Amino acid sequence: MQRHVPPVVVLAPDSFKGALTAVAACDAIAHGLRRAFEAVDVRACPMADGGEGTLDALLTQGGERRTLEVRGAGGTPRSAHFAWFARRASPEVVVESAEVIGITDPAAMAVPVTERSSRGLGELMATLLDAGVRTFLVGLGGTSTNDGGAGLLSALGVGLFDAAGLTLPPTPSGLQRLARVDTTALDPRLAESTLTILSDVTNPLCGERGATAVFGPQKGVPARDIPELDARLARFAGLLEAALGRSSATNPGAGAAGGLGFALQLLGGHVRSGADVVADWVGLDAALDGADWAITGEGQSDAQTLQGKAPSVVARRARAAGVPTTLLSGAVDGAALPELDQVFAGCFGLPAGPLSLADSMAQTSRLLSERAQQIALLWRAARG
Amino acid sequence: MQRHVPPVVVLAPDSFKGALTAVAACDAIAHGLRRAFEAVDVRACPMADGGEGTLDALLTQGGERRTLEVRGAGGTPRSAHFAWFARRASPEVVVESAEVIGITDPAAMAVPVTERSSRGLGELMATLLDAGVRTFLVGLGGTSTNDGGAGLLSALGVGLFDAAGLTLPPTPSGLQRLARVDTTALDPRLAESTLTILSDVTNPLCGERGATAVFGPQKGVPARDIPELDARLARFAGLLEAALGRSSATNPGAGAAGGLGFALQLLGGHVRSGADVVADWVGLDAALDGADWAITGEGQSDAQTLQGKAPSVVARRARAAGVPTTLLSGAVDGAALPELDQVFAGCFGLPAGPLSLADSMAQTSRLLSERAQQIALLWRAARG
Repeated sequence: MQRHVPPVVVLAPDSFKGALTAVAACDAIAHGLRRAFEAVDVRACPMADGGEGTLDALLTQGGERRTLEVRGAGGTPRSAHFAWFARRASPEVVVESAEVIGITDPAAMAVPVTERSSRGLGELMATLLDAGVRTFLVGLGGTSTNDGGAGLLSALGVGLFDAAGLTLPPTPSGLQRLARVDTTALDPRLAESTLTILSDVTNPLCGERGATAVFGPQKGVPARDIPELDARLARFAGLLEAALGRSSATNPGAGAAGGLGFALQLLGGHVRSGADVVADWVGLDAALDGADWAITGEGQSDAQTLQGKAPSVVARRARAAGVPTTLLSGAVDGAALPELDQVFAGCFGLPAGPLSLADSMAQTSRLLSERAQQIALLWRAARG
Repeated sequence: MQRHVPPVVVLAPDSFKGALTAVAACDAIAHGLRRAFEAVDVRACPMADGGEGTLDALLTQGGERRTLEVRGAGGTPRSAHFAWFARRASPEVVVESAEVIGITDPAAMAVPVTERSSRGLGELMATLLDAGVRTFLVGLGGTSTNDGGAGLLSALGVGLFDAAGLTLPPTPSGLQRLARVDTTALDPRLAESTLTILSDVTNPLCGERGATAVFGPQKGVPARDIPELDARLARFAGLLEAALGRSSATNPGAGAAGGLGFALQLLGGHVRSGADVVADWVGLDAALDGADWAITGEGQSDAQTLQGKAPSVVARRARAAGVPTTLLSGAVDGAALPELDQVFAGCFGLPAGPLSLADSMAQTSRLLSERAQQIALLWRAARG
């Protein structure tokens, strides 16, 4: 008779964007579980996918949140958080690109996309190189730029010139007149550095599936301007690749973050799934070892959830460990259930009845706790 | 290893009022379960609580739906359904009072509550007595009248007179001048009849917890008129009880359906929980025998759910059979969860994300099916 044996439960939610951090989500779920199983053995592994919330998730494992003044995508100064870890001989730094050049920065969004630049991110990296950092993890996603990483490379020593030899600004506007690049002054410390790019985007830099065509419109690129801006990035990439004698524009992920994926790969960076990096960092596999059940979550779930988002990474690793994973989500798209059902042992939305989005978000913590309790009561009953 | 052993599941939802009958709810839940467990053994016991949907639930066990033209509470003719069962030597008839004098009848609601009468229900019973019926099950609930059952009794032979000996109409207005009742012409066939009153109301006829004070306002009794109307029912009841030499005004349930509970008990009727009668009728206990899991449901759940509503009756009987019960509901009141959690192995609302009431009701069948599938996937995983 197994009645009421408390299970070992791994809690590995992503943040509920705009409502709850992953850490707070773990707390809410644990609270609900404890109302069903007083002695439940909870293992919290707050997750993220390399985008918003990644620093919060990683910093649960130690490390230090630091801040630097940088230039945002529109040129306006802003404070960017990053995470500093001294676990090894040489410091490791985790940067969320969106902290510097995020699409939620009103000052940047007030400037046309053709004038936005990833320069601030390069300046941040240069400052960190000065501070002795040689290991960088750079989260892409949520950026406002579409400059092919020209700003980042410019801040790290690459010169951009027009036919008359005049220096050009590292923006889509500036690239219009690009005739020559000079990579001889590229910061040599990058060659000694390890760059890990956290991204789930597999798009190349240019073409139909490229950064401009696919992600440009949401950054403000008018449809009619896509071919011209795409061609500027192609010419820029061609010149750079020729100068450096290596290529990355057609690599999967080159089209991430308006071409930052291209620039960082050209600098020797390797793309990894953000959620997988976070999962490793927070020790998800060790937590799953011997566990009975995993609970993951996110703010909104649909077919995209299965494209490398945190819940799908949790479910994949849990399955490998023989552990079923249940999904708690702010909203589950019913049309995606046939796919989600292949992966999750039950997908549950947060509202318990008709509710507005605003009310649901305002009550996320309570609703998440209630839903966790309800699935735990069912789990307990099913165990008999 | 029990992996994926399909469970034996009893489906015993109430109707989802305004959206889905209990039979359709069983179908939707079964559909969802089969997507999780192809070979699930489903035992459908559509439930009701003596109110709306009772005929539908009982008619799943055979019997015949019949119709009679009757007078509604406002005097306007309407067609009333009832159920006719010929299982035994003598026919049994099930009547939903609301079919005759329902609060959803616009013609009745256009008339002041003081002019509404339960007469049509008495006329229906008289017609059925003529047809040889001696076994009546009368569902209370959802009525628009507050006449103390004066209309019903009048139609069955009780005379109501004023001080001058003039006949009074069997309405709250008429009762104002009531001086004498004559029960000598009360239909003698009632004495040979079995009357079962389906009701979960325990209120007495009069007083602070009486029909007028508690249920009058929702029928249109202004607060200032409660004492006077309550006093009329008290005088009416006193005269009747004296004439018949028996009493029922202070019995639990006398205050049901505007005093129909008083009148029907005075005629020898016995009050039973509507949900219990339906549960017996549909063979719930036999279905629960050897089952692994029960799933119940209703349109809206709160602390009232535990006051004899169908889901709580299902859960009580299931618990007695050692079977856990999960609740699927159009809306679960979070504030009631601490109480509901004592009874149900998980309570789940229908929406999977922010959704309006209208959209939720329009999609009840699909949402119910999806939710059933999700809890089944979790059940399956928990079984390991």
